[in-house]
Amino acid sequence: MNLVLGIDGGGTSCRAALATASGDVVGRGKSGPANIMTDLDGARHNIVEAARLAFVEASMDPGLIPDTSAVLGLAGTNVGGYKQQLEAILPFRRSFVESDALIAMNGALGDHDGAIAIIGTGSIFMSRKGSAMQTIGGWGFLLGDLGGGARIGRDLLQETLLAHDDIRPGSALTQAVMEKFAGDPRDIVKFGAASKPADFGTFAPMVFDHAGKGDPVAARVLQRAVGDLEEALDALKLEPGQRLCLLGGLAGLVAPYMSARYQAMLHTPLQDALGGAVTMAARLFGNAGAPAHA
Amino acid sequence: MNLVLGIDGGGTSCRAALATASGDVVGRGKSGPANIMTDLDGARHNIVEAARLAFVEASMDPGLIPDTSAVLGLAGTNVGGYKQQLEAILPFRRSFVESDALIAMNGALGDHDGAIAIIGTGSIFMSRKGSAMQTIGGWGFLLGDLGGGARIGRDLLQETLLAHDDIRPGSALTQAVMEKFAGDPRDIVKFGAASKPADFGTFAPMVFDHAGKGDPVAARVLQRAVGDLEEALDALKLEPGQRLCLLGGLAGLVAPYMSARYQAMLHTPLQDALGGAVTMAARLFGNAGAPAHA
Repeated sequence: MNLVLGIDGGGTSCRAALATASGDVVGRGKSGPANIMTDLDGARHNIVEAARLAFVEASMDPGLIPDTSAVLGLAGTNVGGYKQQLEAILPFRRSFVESDALIAMNGALGDHDGAIAIIGTGSIFMSRKGSAMQTIGGWGFLLGDLGGGARIGRDLLQETLLAHDDIRPGSALTQAVMEKFAGDPRDIVKFGAASKPADFGTFAPMVFDHAGKGDPVAARVLQRAVGDLEEALDALKLEPGQRLCLLGGLAGLVAPYMSARYQAMLHTPLQDALGGAVTMAARLFGNAGAPAHA
Repeated sequence: MNLVLGIDGGGTSCRAALATASGDVVGRGKSGPANIMTDLDGARHNIVEAARLAFVEASMDPGLIPDTSAVLGLAGTNVGGYKQQLEAILPFRRSFVESDALIAMNGALGDHDGAIAIIGTGSIFMSRKGSAMQTIGGWGFLLGDLGGGARIGRDLLQETLLAHDDIRPGSALTQAVMEKFAGDPRDIVKFGAASKPADFGTFAPMVFDHAGKGDPVAARVLQRAVGDLEEALDALKLEPGQRLCLLGGLAGLVAPYMSARYQAMLHTPLQDALGGAVTMAARLFGNAGAPAHA
């Protein structure tokens, strides 16, 4: 029996799905982080562990791993060398390592043309028209990732300091942030100096919460974020009628604030990223290309 | 003879001036950094060394240091505890440790009401009306310091990445930045991750340079910076006719871009920050309050 693996690895966990050659999932597994940029060996370990658990769940022998080919979607594949280093040490029959964004797009759009916007801690955009693909954004929250959760949170902390100095008007939202820091702006500065992007991102939900209550600072921060997101989408030059899928932790919160033009394009993703990896694996390594009853 | 010391300490060097009780400088000394937040003992060492060199230049005995009172202007005095810790270990007769901004304002304005904007790597604003003083801004480049050199540089790098992705139009300026990174946006991201505020600030002069040639991205970045600076000045509620002094490394570059309202208020600083510290020291510890020929 010809089996394939789809794998979706990220900074917090790694998921694997074992599927038949036609893409029907027979077992799933989940393990720890697979960050090839910060811990290549740890990533390999968790990838193999997730695959092993998928064999176990399918009541199949994990000893078949070296006979099984895999499509992997991982962050950091565009940064010099990591992808090649990983492919060289993976135990699968054949390994096809791609970006997390690509497998997410394949899952979300299936065979359709269109685009995805992954809006989580960061922001990244990808479009497909036939065989032509385009990826923009990303780059991290310090100089990029505009409209992502870390930028929204950072923007809110900045607005809170500006309100503290009476440079811009504050609101219930900036008051609520200030209370989290016991009223001391220096503690906001200290928090910022010690924080990772995800820490800034923890403040993003407050912005959406207060925006729903008409808070003017929340509205300003959100308008800027949505403006930045739509400016990036504009660069993808989507045509009316094309599909746009919003993915990532903030997708559901951002969608209601988008302009009518993009609202009209929004589609529910067909599958998640892991589903996208499985479909790609079945196409590449299975028999999906052959007649159904061959 | 009653002598006083004025001291101006910063992250790169520490300067001291020895003066008579009426504020006439008789000797100067310069030593290494005096950053009380990152190296309290090192700061004490360089403060005392600068004072010692001032005595030497005046051909006087540094053994008089314990008999001499000093006014010190230092960064970091508003952050919990450092000021008190330093005052406890200084060897002067009496030590009056104040913020670097305060001595800069006293130097720049003399006895006049008005305000200063220190526009260097960061940005901070201070005003005085009679005995009432107000300080706003600062807070560091991550969440504050809007309009300062680090924010201008960071903004330029972001615009360069947005131009690379065709999200916003590029220009000769973004092209010039891209060339500095051998055309690879990933190197911009790496530079950002490894950079301190002053490193981002090294890109600020390029913005002014290209703005002078009509570059549209430079104009956009600069308009944002000057808008942020004037928004902070607005919060000081200066009245027409009051003095405004721009200080810091970018003062001369920013001045021509300010609005007519603030241009009309601009005055050349009367003295530098060290001069401000000396004047304060003479007032507090000398005989400047007494009749001239007493």
